[in-house]
Amino acid sequence: MLSKNQLKNITSLHTKKNRDEEQLFLIEGEKMMEELFRSDFRTEMVFAQEDWIEKNEAQLGRKKIPCQPVTEAELKKISLLSAPNKVLAIAGQRRGEVDLAKVGSELYLYLDAIRDPGNMGTIIRLAHWFGVSQVICSPDCVELYNPKVVQSTMGSIFSIRVCEAVLSDLISDKTGFPVFGALLDGENIYGKDNFTSGILVIGNESNGISEKNLPLISDRVKIPPAAENHAESLNAAMATAVFLSEYLRRKK
Amino acid sequence: MLSKNQLKNITSLHTKKNRDEEQLFLIEGEKMMEELFRSDFRTEMVFAQEDWIEKNEAQLGRKKIPCQPVTEAELKKISLLSAPNKVLAIAGQRRGEVDLAKVGSELYLYLDAIRDPGNMGTIIRLAHWFGVSQVICSPDCVELYNPKVVQSTMGSIFSIRVCEAVLSDLISDKTGFPVFGALLDGENIYGKDNFTSGILVIGNESNGISEKNLPLISDRVKIPPAAENHAESLNAAMATAVFLSEYLRRKK
Repeated sequence: MLSKNQLKNITSLHTKKNRDEEQLFLIEGEKMMEELFRSDFRTEMVFAQEDWIEKNEAQLGRKKIPCQPVTEAELKKISLLSAPNKVLAIAGQRRGEVDLAKVGSELYLYLDAIRDPGNMGTIIRLAHWFGVSQVICSPDCVELYNPKVVQSTMGSIFSIRVCEAVLSDLISDKTGFPVFGALLDGENIYGKDNFTSGILVIGNESNGISEKNLPLISDRVKIPPAAENHAESLNAAMATAVFLSEYLRRKK
Repeated sequence: MLSKNQLKNITSLHTKKNRDEEQLFLIEGEKMMEELFRSDFRTEMVFAQEDWIEKNEAQLGRKKIPCQPVTEAELKKISLLSAPNKVLAIAGQRRGEVDLAKVGSELYLYLDAIRDPGNMGTIIRLAHWFGVSQVICSPDCVELYNPKVVQSTMGSIFSIRVCEAVLSDLISDKTGFPVFGALLDGENIYGKDNFTSGILVIGNESNGISEKNLPLISDRVKIPPAAENHAESLNAAMATAVFLSEYLRRKK
């Protein structure tokens, strides 16, 4: 049975303030736990229903992760999902430093004020699929360890490096690598031959690339619509899917 | 003021059963109304706040659309949005017939049991962006006029033809056009030169392409992940974004 204190500790991690202070975050569900096991993220504690524990005893033992059985009703109390799924874990946050060592041969993503948790998670998932090893977030992006972000990465959060930085801190006159930005007056991405390494900036859902980052863009690109009179834009996650697909195509 | 009867009529369209019977559906918000005005969809009636009506009087007059002022509180009662936005309209559904006249020079989408309204709407929006003129839905797709589908098309529902059909009814031994399907053992899409016309089948979110449609696939394709040991798949909408981008790239 969950003690009052445990209940309090777990639910305190539902808020950003406490996640920041404790440097911890929550992971939920069977699928996410498989990905967590595969990763080298530090797992503090697992709360799970008996049948899940039975199936995963060997894994828990091997990794020496403390585990406490909970009932379905208890899981409901600590879960943030509308349909809790067997298991919830507390894991340690990671604060990676930006590493631009491979910026001459790889593409990195820079997220400029992405605010929607679902978009953020989806973009991290796309980055993982298309072989982007590092995603850099502006300080005003939605929190990486927001439970909705974590869940919508579908586990990719454990596989790629995500860090925070101000874009201008990464770029000096001497850096010399391209900084791509999606802009309406940009060049057609399908014909952009140097789109093989550098940094791709993905703008905010409503406002696009921020004023302060616009002067840092060296290569303006766009995904051309089929018809020129097209009123709409693609959303941030869909545009990322297309850009990263173009990046991978050049490598394959 | 809204009469009891009006309130009842509008909210009855919150359910599929009544939408089907009346062949009507709901549209909400300023942005969607602009798109509706641009289209030739029949608009039965508009319910809007005074300030919206003032701005749009000319449009309403030109199109002879009856309009009734409502208060913010009344709009809340008839709206399905968590944050109602000025206006709600009732419009007439359309049941287009599949037209394969251009299947030799264009790509059509076939949605095989897409169940999530957000995915369905996003896919219709992507089809519009990338110049797909026709989307064909299997009979077990989520209802096209589900308000969540309608809203997440961002207006593209008014611009492209969406119809319903059983895939095997569209294909005979003599048709001769390729039917593409995303399958794990498929050919790399980036090198698939004939991906310029035919039908692309998008499978269900959990189960992929259905058993009955698998034998109809003539060209198995896949989006290769960056790393071969990749456990995850792309979701239906993201995969559609990548496939349609590849299609457009060949045209540009």
